[in-house]
Amino acid sequence: MTNMIADKKIVIVGLGLIGGSIARSLSQSNLAAEIVGVGRNESVLKEALDAGAITSWATDLKEACSGADLVVIAVPSLTVKSVLEQIKPVITENMVLTDAASVKHAIVEAAEEVFGQTPNRFVPGHPIAGSEHSGFTASSTDLFKGKKVILTPLEHTDPEAIDLVASLWEAQGADVLKMTVERHDEVLAATSHLPHLLAFSLVDTLSQQGESEEIFRYAAGGFRDFTRIASSDPQMWHDIFMTNGEATVKILDSYIQDLKRLREALLSGNSEELMSTFTRARKSRARFLEFFEKNDSSEKLSD
Amino acid sequence: MTNMIADKKIVIVGLGLIGGSIARSLSQSNLAAEIVGVGRNESVLKEALDAGAITSWATDLKEACSGADLVVIAVPSLTVKSVLEQIKPVITENMVLTDAASVKHAIVEAAEEVFGQTPNRFVPGHPIAGSEHSGFTASSTDLFKGKKVILTPLEHTDPEAIDLVASLWEAQGADVLKMTVERHDEVLAATSHLPHLLAFSLVDTLSQQGESEEIFRYAAGGFRDFTRIASSDPQMWHDIFMTNGEATVKILDSYIQDLKRLREALLSGNSEELMSTFTRARKSRARFLEFFEKNDSSEKLSD
Repeated sequence: MTNMIADKKIVIVGLGLIGGSIARSLSQSNLAAEIVGVGRNESVLKEALDAGAITSWATDLKEACSGADLVVIAVPSLTVKSVLEQIKPVITENMVLTDAASVKHAIVEAAEEVFGQTPNRFVPGHPIAGSEHSGFTASSTDLFKGKKVILTPLEHTDPEAIDLVASLWEAQGADVLKMTVERHDEVLAATSHLPHLLAFSLVDTLSQQGESEEIFRYAAGGFRDFTRIASSDPQMWHDIFMTNGEATVKILDSYIQDLKRLREALLSGNSEELMSTFTRARKSRARFLEFFEKNDSSEKLSD
Repeated sequence: MTNMIADKKIVIVGLGLIGGSIARSLSQSNLAAEIVGVGRNESVLKEALDAGAITSWATDLKEACSGADLVVIAVPSLTVKSVLEQIKPVITENMVLTDAASVKHAIVEAAEEVFGQTPNRFVPGHPIAGSEHSGFTASSTDLFKGKKVILTPLEHTDPEAIDLVASLWEAQGADVLKMTVERHDEVLAATSHLPHLLAFSLVDTLSQQGESEEIFRYAAGGFRDFTRIASSDPQMWHDIFMTNGEATVKILDSYIQDLKRLREALLSGNSEELMSTFTRARKSRARFLEFFEKNDSSEKLSD
């Protein structure tokens, strides 16, 4: 599969954490003939060129995408539509498009709005990897190594285009899976979007308390890890919640209901309820860790 | 200060993560003349002796504590009262007592129930350090290095006893602070007890969803860190919530209220509200990290 992307011209739109890491990873292994970086910030593009992550750069999307074999759109969710609009005039029959956004129905809808229907060679994708740090400076050659990438092709998506996009990720050591758009957005709401909302919200709640300085002063390692994701890029998460609000609210409602049950148990001193919930949760997390450690090689956290 | 504990007979009741780490740390530096480990499980006591963490062990509390200079009670919160009852007959005028439980008012109340009033030489304490792993096997010589220990002495607590307990912790590289019992329980409810409740509850909520196996299968590093504390000892956390339920519910109610505000923002697509909350939270967490990194030397997490 890997050599499918050899000798291809790949354009990466957006050289942030995700786009930058794709570029670094592909260039390090000399996997593509040409890697063009596109962005608005020239200094970032120059930095990427100096780092050897890209072979050339451009600020003009249309120009950069002309003659591309594969265009990877790695910009915040709500910016994808504008990128598609700009690329539209230069899309050829053979050009494959993909993206890396966290909410797939919004991307499919954006493509439908721009093209009438999602192009056959547009393969929506989402790497399940990231960091609370953002931008090209946070990117690395091995961000996707051992990580999962979910592709959500539609019924009419070209199998050859799916294979090319799969090989883009597999070349970087990722494990590629397929899922429907709806299921993806539901699963990610539960495992990623809700936890981010909870972490942002907890830090915010505590910072509004009287003497919050003191509260933060006595917080320890458990708090640090629990809130790590609250240091994530506000713009990126704004876009995610603006587009996956419905699925997030659905799982949030289950969560609030369960929290209220625990609240009653705290007030009434319901020993059995507390003990059984904590025991069940620990067991479930052990099961999650098993899945996680089977695949993931990254042990180190960022802070 | 450090040499205050030299040549002392120190009894550590409970050789779990906390008691075991105190024993290992003191014995590694030859800080005390005698370190007696007390517990119910003989195989753990023998393991601690073999590891050189203690100089002797006993399963009989009264016997072990006879002639002790300092007794450190490191058992789950709800077991502290029974330990105090058993020690009561052998307590001498000079013997100093302390504990390591996470909820201080419950310990003070237990002492009042056993002794009529909290003994002058009983210094309630709480090391702000831990791990989701428990038991002697998880203990280490440097668990308290660079960590905070909060002492919550009462008005009538003997200053000399406070100094001795402070030196016990300082000898292990900890930073000792004083706080009132009430403030301690309030601050810990916010920074430790609530996050643990939220993590336990999230894992439990997700494990009750249909196809939860699949949900856990697609969870990534952010989820792992966010839920790390949900792998903590259920018994320990049961005891904490049974004793600090009221303070936890108070901050939980603020949290649920804020979550509901965010829920409305998700449903109505309130861009500004989402952006301002996330931006504020990220800024607050940066402030917390500043405090944290100034003191803490441990970068590595346990899983």
